[in-house]
Amino acid sequence: MTPKGDSHTQKSSQQASLEWLSAEYHDLNGDHIDILEGTPTALEFARIVQISRPVLIKRFQASSCKWSNDYLISKMGSRPISVAVTPNGRADAITLGPNGKLYFAEPAVEKMSMKSLLDNLSDDTCSAGDGAAAETYYLQSQNGNVYSSGFFNGQDDLSEFETLRQDIPSDVKWCTEALDKSPEAVNVWIGDGGSISSIHSDPYENIYTVVRGQKHFTLLPPTDGWCLDERLYPHATYVRNAGDLVLQPSPEISPPVRWASILNPHLPGCIPPEAHPIHISVSENEAIYIPVGWWHHVRQSSITVALNWWYDTEMRGMSWVMLSYLRDMKDVPSGNTDNEGSKAVV
Amino acid sequence: MTPKGDSHTQKSSQQASLEWLSAEYHDLNGDHIDILEGTPTALEFARIVQISRPVLIKRFQASSCKWSNDYLISKMGSRPISVAVTPNGRADAITLGPNGKLYFAEPAVEKMSMKSLLDNLSDDTCSAGDGAAAETYYLQSQNGNVYSSGFFNGQDDLSEFETLRQDIPSDVKWCTEALDKSPEAVNVWIGDGGSISSIHSDPYENIYTVVRGQKHFTLLPPTDGWCLDERLYPHATYVRNAGDLVLQPSPEISPPVRWASILNPHLPGCIPPEAHPIHISVSENEAIYIPVGWWHHVRQSSITVALNWWYDTEMRGMSWVMLSYLRDMKDVPSGNTDNEGSKAVV
Repeated sequence: MTPKGDSHTQKSSQQASLEWLSAEYHDLNGDHIDILEGTPTALEFARIVQISRPVLIKRFQASSCKWSNDYLISKMGSRPISVAVTPNGRADAITLGPNGKLYFAEPAVEKMSMKSLLDNLSDDTCSAGDGAAAETYYLQSQNGNVYSSGFFNGQDDLSEFETLRQDIPSDVKWCTEALDKSPEAVNVWIGDGGSISSIHSDPYENIYTVVRGQKHFTLLPPTDGWCLDERLYPHATYVRNAGDLVLQPSPEISPPVRWASILNPHLPGCIPPEAHPIHISVSENEAIYIPVGWWHHVRQSSITVALNWWYDTEMRGMSWVMLSYLRDMKDVPSGNTDNEGSKAVV
Repeated sequence: MTPKGDSHTQKSSQQASLEWLSAEYHDLNGDHIDILEGTPTALEFARIVQISRPVLIKRFQASSCKWSNDYLISKMGSRPISVAVTPNGRADAITLGPNGKLYFAEPAVEKMSMKSLLDNLSDDTCSAGDGAAAETYYLQSQNGNVYSSGFFNGQDDLSEFETLRQDIPSDVKWCTEALDKSPEAVNVWIGDGGSISSIHSDPYENIYTVVRGQKHFTLLPPTDGWCLDERLYPHATYVRNAGDLVLQPSPEISPPVRWASILNPHLPGCIPPEAHPIHISVSENEAIYIPVGWWHHVRQSSITVALNWWYDTEMRGMSWVMLSYLRDMKDVPSGNTDNEGSKAVV
């Protein structure tokens, strides 16, 4: 059974429901997010999780290490790390393929030393994101690259960043206590202004801290998802061919990827006026709580090192039901029909 | 704007949505409710509130007093208390009026001493609820009859039960701390098997404890509200006329009352099979947490004294939006159209 009923003629009712939920949510919550002057207690954070709105947390110091290039290189030596490489800084994003079709493009993943990664990043904000560089490198392996679920289950798998573990706590104590569970994955992220994370939502509670540089978030509540023009895109991956990165469509048997078509939700006019994006920057020794299901688009203006702790979401109660409902109520057309695929990406 | 869209032809889509939410909620949550062997910490209760499912709490001792008839009478003396009086034990319930129409009937409220109230209650479970008694008395004034919001705001109003206050804590510490607010109202309830509370939901978080006797709850999640056949009923009040209680319809200008038409949701076959009622009894020194929006029907089999603490619900976040949506999505016809009013009450 779907929540849509059986008839296509009911589309306007679904859309009315989505718009009502979006407007009602905004009426009750506004655009406000709380800013905490220090880390919360477990009880304070449990109250925050109930409300499920983002919170900026100041004076969050994950570790006392300095995260300079020299320090990172000295700790990591020649150990190979997996780095996302794209021609345009948009990994996991909708991209025009050489055949004129739009694809959900995964980056090439190449192994290199920390020094090679950092040599390819720049603090030059003028060139950031303009595609001037031939290729963009972003450490965003996000598979629990520092601590994965195995670590917490007593079956540790190998981490490319094992030598950095002493600088990265395996959990956030007040979050672990509030949620009564260990993290599912802990990641380190290293990139520069050339990289952008396209807008998406995760099935996790997320504590995300910047330890060097600054991240710029554009956030939308789950109820505003209908404004993001989600469509189905064929899957593709960048591969290196004779030295160049080329986008290689996956076999047709691969399931299409549901993804937002809005490339730049942080820019004025790119999303419907009914949506109410929240723009917030996270600086060194600050953290942001991104609740499960919240849409986020992430940029950075210089070399930025960040850490995040993902915690499995609570499946009991109403919140997961509601997120599923918001997801399943939406019509999700193909991103490439009627030659309007490229028009959909703005 | 309503969540229904503009056309009556969309009714099946609304119904499909309600049924989908109900089924999905049940798939994820089942019929399970947690039973705690003792009172939770504030943090544990904050986690429970996030999930928003009922919990039975054992070893909850509100006070050490014995709550016997003698004790209550000695403490209260001749102080007048407000008691709900009905001919059938159904205060605030759908009732057939003398003109063949169905009404939402409020009880007569009569002042009497504690002794008069208790003299009219019986532990005889055989006669309970069978309408054998000419009139049914139930202390259910539920207006913060022990402590009202004024008490917590430093502007105490008078309580009919002021002399019982030393036996009734003004709050539940772990709940106050978890929710970070004082109660909105604290009530004492005294009744017997002749009284039944019809199924309804409240806009409050509710900690409800039995200090003498036993209460039998039938609970339904907010998503099962569509199974309760809510309809609009004209308002009426029992008044005493030449010694008898008669149901007096309110002036036609009074707004109709939206109320569930299902009188006996605890009996097999009275609600659609898609609903999943949870039946749970609460005994002396036990408490139940009834989350905001949960439907509850309450019975008792002997003289039962209960206390409850209502806390204002959290309006921020998604949960209130969701409760409003579930409420507004439903079609709520008149309870008296097409001569099917009395058929609706089963």
